[in-house]
Parts: sequence; C-alpha cells; structure tokens
Amino acid sequence: MHKILILIHCKDTSGIIATVTNYIYNSGGNIVYIDQHVDSENGIFFMRLESVFDSSDFNYDLFKTNFGTEIGDTYQMKWKMYTSDYTPKMALFVSKYDHCLYDILSRYNAREWNVEIPLIISNHPDLEPVAHNFKIPYHHVPVTKDTKKEAEAKQIALLKEFNIDFIVLARYMQIVSEKIITLYPNKIINIHHSFLPAFVGAKPYHSAFKRGVKIIGATSHYVTEELDAGPIIEQDVTRVTHTHSIKDLIMKGKDLEKIVLSRAIKLHIERKTIVHDNKTIIFS
Amino acid sequence: MHKILILIHCKDTSGIIATVTNYIYNSGGNIVYIDQHVDSENGIFFMRLESVFDSSDFNYDLFKTNFGTEIGDTYQMKWKMYTSDYTPKMALFVSKYDHCLYDILSRYNAREWNVEIPLIISNHPDLEPVAHNFKIPYHHVPVTKDTKKEAEAKQIALLKEFNIDFIVLARYMQIVSEKIITLYPNKIINIHHSFLPAFVGAKPYHSAFKRGVKIIGATSHYVTEELDAGPIIEQDVTRVTHTHSIKDLIMKGKDLEKIVLSRAIKLHIERKTIVHDNKTIIFS
Amino acid sequence: MHKILILIHCKDTSGIIATVTNYIYNSGGNIVYIDQHVDSENGIFFMRLESVFDSSDFNYDLFKTNFGTEIGDTYQMKWKMYTSDYTPKMALFVSKYDHCLYDILSRYNAREWNVEIPLIISNHPDLEPVAHNFKIPYHHVPVTKDTKKEAEAKQIALLKEFNIDFIVLARYMQIVSEKIITLYPNKIINIHHSFLPAFVGAKPYHSAFKRGVKIIGATSHYVTEELDAGPIIEQDVTRVTHTHSIKDLIMKGKDLEKIVLSRAIKLHIERKTIVHDNKTIIFS
Amino acid sequence: MHKILILIHCKDTSGIIATVTNYIYNSGGNIVYIDQHVDSENGIFFMRLESVFDSSDFNYDLFKTNFGTEIGDTYQMKWKMYTSDYTPKMALFVSKYDHCLYDILSRYNAREWNVEIPLIISNHPDLEPVAHNFKIPYHHVPVTKDTKKEAEAKQIALLKEFNIDFIVLARYMQIVSEKIITLYPNKIINIHHSFLPAFVGAKPYHSAFKRGVKIIGATSHYVTEELDAGPIIEQDVTRVTHTHSIKDLIMKGKDLEKIVLSRAIKLHIERKTIVHDNKTIIFS
Repeated sequence: MHKILILIHCKDTSGIIATVTNYIYNSGGNIVYIDQHVDSENGIFFMRLESVFDSSDFNYDLFKTNFGTEIGDTYQMKWKMYTSDYTPKMALFVSKYDHCLYDILSRYNAREWNVEIPLIISNHPDLEPVAHNFKIPYHHVPVTKDTKKEAEAKQIALLKEFNIDFIVLARYMQIVSEKIITLYPNKIINIHHSFLPAFVGAKPYHSAFKRGVKIIGATSHYVTEELDAGPIIEQDVTRVTHTHSIKDLIMKGKDLEKIVLSRAIKLHIERKTIVHDNKTIIFS
Repeated sequence: MHKILILIHCKDTSGIIATVTNYIYNSGGNIVYIDQHVDSENGIFFMRLESVFDSSDFNYDLFKTNFGTEIGDTYQMKWKMYTSDYTPKMALFVSKYDHCLYDILSRYNAREWNVEIPLIISNHPDLEPVAHNFKIPYHHVPVTKDTKKEAEAKQIALLKEFNIDFIVLARYMQIVSEKIITLYPNKIINIHHSFLPAFVGAKPYHSAFKRGVKIIGATSHYVTEELDAGPIIEQDVTRVTHTHSIKDLIMKGKDLEKIVLSRAIKLHIERKTIVHDNKTIIFS
Repeated sequence: MHKILILIHCKDTSGIIATVTNYIYNSGGNIVYIDQHVDSENGIFFMRLESVFDSSDFNYDLFKTNFGTEIGDTYQMKWKMYTSDYTPKMALFVSKYDHCLYDILSRYNAREWNVEIPLIISNHPDLEPVAHNFKIPYHHVPVTKDTKKEAEAKQIALLKEFNIDFIVLARYMQIVSEKIITLYPNKIINIHHSFLPAFVGAKPYHSAFKRGVKIIGATSHYVTEELDAGPIIEQDVTRVTHTHSIKDLIMKGKDLEKIVLSRAIKLHIERKTIVHDNKTIIFS
Repeated sequence: MHKILILIHCKDTSGIIATVTNYIYNSGGNIVYIDQHVDSENGIFFMRLESVFDSSDFNYDLFKTNFGTEIGDTYQMKWKMYTSDYTPKMALFVSKYDHCLYDILSRYNAREWNVEIPLIISNHPDLEPVAHNFKIPYHHVPVTKDTKKEAEAKQIALLKEFNIDFIVLARYMQIVSEKIITLYPNKIINIHHSFLPAFVGAKPYHSAFKRGVKIIGATSHYVTEELDAGPIIEQDVTRVTHTHSIKDLIMKGKDLEKIVLSRAIKLHIERKTIVHDNKTIIFS
C-alpha cells in the first residue's frame, strides 16, 4: 500500500477538483482525505489531498512524473507530492532558553511526531547536557560580529551534511542569515514571544507590560528576510492583569511559546501548510 | 447561475469523491467548495459540496432526480440538496429571558443570516413588546399541566401554517413534546446553560457554583427525546473564580448562551451540520 | 445602612493599609471588601475598599471631609469616595452600527447594571428607531468638516444638561473632540475592533486579513488624545482561519466588540478601574 | 528582613481586617499584599496577607505564638503562617506517561518554582532514566492487588524520610490510599484528563469522543477519598472538532494536562489556595 499526499495551488479555474480526483481514481488511487480552499479575492485555488494506492504494481515515480505533465503543467500548478514513508529531518537551533527545547524533545522522545532530529545547533554551549540526555548531537557554533560568515558556513555545512529538510528556531536569539533563509524558503519556523503584529522585535514582554495589555500572545511563523513579518502558522494568547510583573509575563509567555511552537511544528511535519502571498493556508 | 449545495453521508467506499465530483463536472457544474470527513472507526463517509452551474438550460429538478438515481442510490447515500435561493424559515420559542432573543433579532435586523423568522411562540406574554419592536408576530401559547396537548396542537398548527423549517429554543423553559421532536428531527436547536455533559438538567449554574468549577460553559445542541443529550453543535466557556456568586455566574453565562446559540443557528442556516450517531459533523 | 466605596492611589509607604482600615473601623465602618495592588517598579500603591456603616447617626459628608484631611492629605493620595445609592449617568454615542447598541440596551432593559442612560447622541439619524423602542431620547447631532465646532458645542450642552458622568462610544465613527476628552478624563470608553496595539486606526479587520493573523481581537479603552492609545480596560480574542474572508472577520469581530465593550462598561460602573500612567488597575 | 505569609479563614464578623492589619502594623510589620474574600452565602471570611518585618530583633516564633493567642483564638480562625525562607518539599508520583513529568522537571531545572523535589515514586520502572537525567532519586514501588498494603507502607516511609510537604500525582495511574490522603489533607494534587465534573473516572477522552463534545479539558484538584471529586484548583480547555480521533484528543489533552497541572503546583507552592467546603479560594 502506498499513501500519497499532494499539495496544490494554482489559479482557480473550473473543473480542477474533478480533474484531479478523477486522475487519481483512474490511476488506481482511493482519495481518503481532501481539503480545498479558494481565495476568491485573488482567484487562487489551494488543495491538500491524501490518496491510497493498493495495487502492488503501482509505480510512484512514474505516477509523480505523469501527474506533473498531465495535471501540474496543464493548470500551471505549484504542487508537491510526498509519500508517507519518508520521515522529514528537522534541525533545532537554540540559544540558552530551554523550555521550548524540552517541550520538543519530550514529544520527540514520546514519538508524537513523524520526524527525525539529527542535530541541535546552538550559539552557546549551555544546553549541551539537555541534548546529551536525549542523545542528540549538539553542535556549538558561536556567533559573534566578526565570525558571522564563518558561523553561517558552518551551519550550512551541517544542514547539508545531515540532509535537513526544515529548521526550527526554538528561541534561537540570533537572526538567521539571508543565505540560509534562501536555502530554506518557508522551511524555517520561528517562535516570537508576542501576539504579532503587535510588539515586533526585541523585548516584546517589556512592551506589552508598558502598554498595559490584558492579553499576551505568542506567534509561530515562517522566517522571511523581514524581521517577525513572515507568514503566521499559529498563535495563541493568555490573559494577564495589572498584578503581573514583567517577570510574570515572561513566565506565562514561556508556556504559550512552547505550545504554539510545537503546534506549528506538528502542522509543518504533517504538511498541512501552504504559503501564498506571505500568508498560510492551514489545512484541517 | 445556479448555486447548489449537497450534503452526503454513507458507508465509506473507494471512489466516492471522484465519482461525485466527476458527475457534477460532467453535468456542467464547477465545484467551488468541497469538504469531506471519514469516520474511520465506523467507516462512514461525509461530504459537503457547493457547486455552480452557469448554463441557462440547467434543470435543477432533473439534476436532483438524476443525482438520486445515479449516485445516491448506487452508494446508498443519505443525501440532501439545496439551492442557494431558498431562504429557510425559523421559528423562535421563548419564555421570559430576553438576552438570546435580542441577540438573535438584532442579527436578523442586520441581515447577518439568510433566514426568515415568521413567528415567535412563547408560553408567556412578557416578550411580546420585543417581538413587536422587531415587527415579528408573537403567539402566546400558554403551557400548563392540563393544557399540554392543546398547546402542542396549537404549536404544531402554527409551525405548519408558516412552513417552518427549523425551530430555535432561545431559553424556552419548557420541554418540547415528543411529537414536535419527531416532526423536526435534528431541526430543533436548544441552548443549555452548562458545559455538557456536565450539569445536565435544571439549575446548572447552581451546580457549577456548588462544585467550585473554574470555568463555566454553554452548549447548543439538537433536541432529542433524552434531555440535554442531543448532538452538540457548539460549545464555549469562560473563566470564573471563587469571587463569583451564583448571580455572577448567571450573568456571565448569559453572554456565553447568546453567542453560542447564535453560532449554532448560523451553522444550521448555512447547512454546515450533519448529524450521525448522535454527534455532529461541522463543516468549515 | 450606608455602603461606601473608596478608591485610592498614592506613593507606596509603610502602614497605609493598617491606617486606612483602622480609620474606617474607628469611624464605625465594617470593611466588606478590600483589594490592593502595589506597582513595585514605580512604588505606587492602589486600593479599592468597600465599607458598611450601620449607625443611624453616620454622617457621610463629615466622614468624607475628615477622611480627606486626616488620611488623604497625609499620604498625598488621589482618592475618590462614592456612596452606593447613587446611579451614574451614561451617554451613548453611536453612528450606524447597531450591534453594540442592542447589546447595551438589552442589558439596560434587563437591569444588569446600576446605570441610567438619559440620552443617545448620534451623527446619523439611522438608529433613532432603536432608541425609540427602548424609550431613550435620541439626539441627532450631525458632524461635518464645517460643523465640528457647532456639533461639539451641542454635544457638550447635552452632556451638561443631563449631568452625564461618563460616555460610551458604541462604535461611534467619529473622533471625539479634545475639549470633550478634557471634560471627561478617563470617563470616555471606546471599543476598538482590533487587538491593540496591533492594527491601530481605520479598517483593522482589513489589516488583520492582510497580515494573515490566526486570532482577531477587540479592545475597550479609555479615550485619550492619542488615537487608540488610551488605557486598556478589557480585551478579548477569537480564532480565525484562512477560510475567513474580511466580511467573516467583521462578522466574528462584532461579537467580540459587543461583549468586550459591555464588560468594560460594567467594570467602569462598578468603579473597579483606576487609571495610572496610561494603564488600568482592574480590581476583582 | 523577614517576610511572612498568613492564610486565614473564619466566621465573618465585623472588624477582622482592621484588627489583623492593625496587629501586624503594631508588631512592626508592613503589609505588602492583602487579598480577602467573603463567602456571603455561608458567612465565611478568607484572607491572604504578606507582611515584611524589617527590625533585626523581630522574633518570628514569638510573633506566631502571640498572633495565635491574640488574634487566631479570638476569632476562632483556621490560620497558617509561613516564612518566605522555607522551601517546601514535593514528592512526584508517576507511572508511564512522561509529558507532565518533563514539564515539571524542566521548570524545576529552570528554577521557576521555590520547591525542592527530593524524590520520585513510581509503580513502574519506565521513567527512571528521566529522573536520572534530572538527578532526582527514583523509587520504584510496584503496586499489585496483593502488595497494596506493603506498597503503601513503603510510600509512607519514603514520604516521612524525606519530610515531604505535598504530593503531586503527575498522571499516576493508581488510586492513592486513604491513609496517605489522611496524612496529606488538601496536599495531594492530581491532574484529571477531563473538564470535571464531566467524564469522571477512567478513559475520559473516550467518553468525550463518544459524546461528541466540541471542547475538551483538564482539571487539577486536591485528592479526596471520593474519586475525581476533590476541590478544583485549576482547569483549562481546548477546542476539538469531528475530525479529531480519540488519539488526537489524547494528544491535544496532554498539552492541557501538563500546563494545568503545573499551574496548580505553582499556586500551591505560592500558598495561594485555601480549601473550604470542598472548594478552593485561589488568591491572586
């Protein structure tokens, strides 16, 4: 049995759903999940589709090639196809905070996600013991003003060496270089400790405290070149009051950050996100 | 242009999606929305589909008949088809509380929903002035132990006279008769002032206070013969603390009740609900 | 029986609580509620206190005067004292949207709040029938570029004539004049249809849609001269997805707006807010 | 400097607040926090008070004794007094699930709480490596039908040996014995994986799935002899839909469980809870 996942977006025209579902059916596939969305303002069609092929002589590569020629090209689709037997490889970038790291690694340990974590990269040595406990190689790549280029080269070398598919910045307190962003478009997940677009940039809890908001938030988004302005994957919030100090906000925020980041990672691993026009489609 | 909505559920088998979408496509329809769900535990397939037929010689009745014969019967589907130009008729049942009533009528007034409200039925005369302000006929049908049969007959006569499609119990403090439930299966929407299944029955806020819960809720559900046990359409909650008296819970609860009930009504009007096995599928 | 409410804020020093509670006790009062907060960063003390005086020869005016001399002056307090038998007078400003208006008036009708609404002021005639149904005088004061001064004068005259204590802008689509803000400092409550400080200014739902947020919000705040920058009283949020159009956001937002505004009004009426340094203390 | 915390509850009578605050003031203390609640239905007064004594010749033991004689006895209070320099000792009971354990230990590691964890007790050996990584002694005390008495004796011996102040059941899949409950009244914190009182007992996610609820929850409560019926400390909820399988509910629920349990532990450690009449007062 082959389970195949297809993500599609293209200009919205008549008959796409019928054509695609029909094509799969005629190729021997049974559609077990379909979710679709039309951005009617901009006339864009989005679809996520899971299909099962039972036949023993099903040829995945051939099917994929033919789908591209017969369907993808015809509708000028941007499309991706995945088989369910592949386990994506995720690199973790951390600095000194460990709450997101523990949350991610304990899920990893409990096999909550279909993912492999071949390495953790950090600009500090502090969290090496945590990585060690979970038996994940830890690479300390210091980043200073003068060593930025060198660090970037080392990071990229590691990402290539381990065939990393996507990167998670688990409270990594550095800006990722443009080159890495270009290598991993919509494949770097960050957690920002505010309810974006409020409080972009550094020290959002301090700003939230100063403004006297009654609710604080956390936002997970794909990293783009503009700081904290990438496509939002997931957000959540929690109530605060005048009794909470900045330290309290930071503490309460940590709980949000780890949950929101882990939800975003799950959505990415399950390939439930499509990015278009700096926004995400999040399939159910 | 004809816009058609189809709701389907049936035993899950291979090829349903392709067959249905293909059928619509070949009949000249363009699918503008499709959402589907498989209850894999029980092997049930659910689908909601919107389709546009542009052709001027499209014959809705013929299409509906043919769909039934060629698709519905083949897959032994339970299916419903609606055209978008029909406005469903909703009857409101109220007693003395007016918060849900005001919420519903102010939305009605602002044309938030595609619905018509031909009448309000109440066992008390109190809310007649509200109905009057919104120019909706108000029928006072008193219900006492001795007049139950008579009242039921009068209610049914009114529902028939005005071709009522579905009923909303907007804090109607009476149990609706079995006969009416049978006439309107999964078409009577109630709001219960607790987070079901906690605190079934009378005085749920008193029970919530006694138990010392930190969150209270409201639940909108389709009415079935068993009290407060019908399929849940929508729920929501709000935080409470030890400082809240029963009176406070009632006050806070009112805000929940009206919002939750109105959300459920909206879902029903937009035909986004399917009931199966005493549970709801709520399409996006 | 006299029930008295005192709101205090001043520089934090040792012994304030004991001194105040002792003073009340020695004056024959029983404290039935006390809530206090210290802003330790800025060294400011805040207190809200309710006290009951049973004695028939209790003299409120004398007590108030003496409290000011013996306690207020000593600690250089900003303090306010209220008796529970006074009903504050609230003016409603509206334009064309009626969802907040209905929400407020139906609560008013149900006597949820200890408040009197002597008048509604609007720059449009549209909502006059709603005011009429609830039997509240409606004053149409048109505001155009050329008539601003005149309109302001008329508004102020009405506010004075009816001894208005505070103003609620229930989706009033005009900026209130500086003069009125000066006359009603921290006494004008606005509802902004975003999660401030995100999306300040016009068309916040359009901005939220464009940014692709996964949660939208509403914020009630006291009006200050800087637009949407006044002290926040209450906020709340609701989830949205990529499937929601701008129209959907507006619809979902309306539910937030009315609930958040009504909560803020309740807090203000119950005198549970103190403003300091452009932030609110919200007592429980 | 001595920081002292007092928790009080007693019959509500006139002058308590003034008497207590005055007593502290006259003993040289400055009250830095006071929160109070009156259960008016039952006439019970509750207070939490923090006070700082600067004088070098302040005698804590004497103050405590005198407070008991002069205030506590007079008002027939149930009262507790704590100094801020004591670190409470918490025992963790676990079985096989590790999500709550990781959440607690990573907070412990980050010194979020003023608590010491001298030991972990488990009826299974599985989580020993986790305890080892965090350098906390792990005691495997198997519990079978036949060894219940023996296991209880061993557990009690360990609790005594390590001077344990309170116990946290971090998804401990056994019922704690009556004897231990009696030894630790309102000092055993459990996490139940439902929104109590809905779905008491085993397999609450299965029941929630069957009932078709749209929101699931988790509840942290003090353990009493009646199963899942003890005083609720904290609850939280999350939305679910028809698309979520039981496995999904369990996964989503885990996130709730760990956050809700950790919040309850924090409240307990900071001594912000008073239990009365099977309900909690949770101070701010």
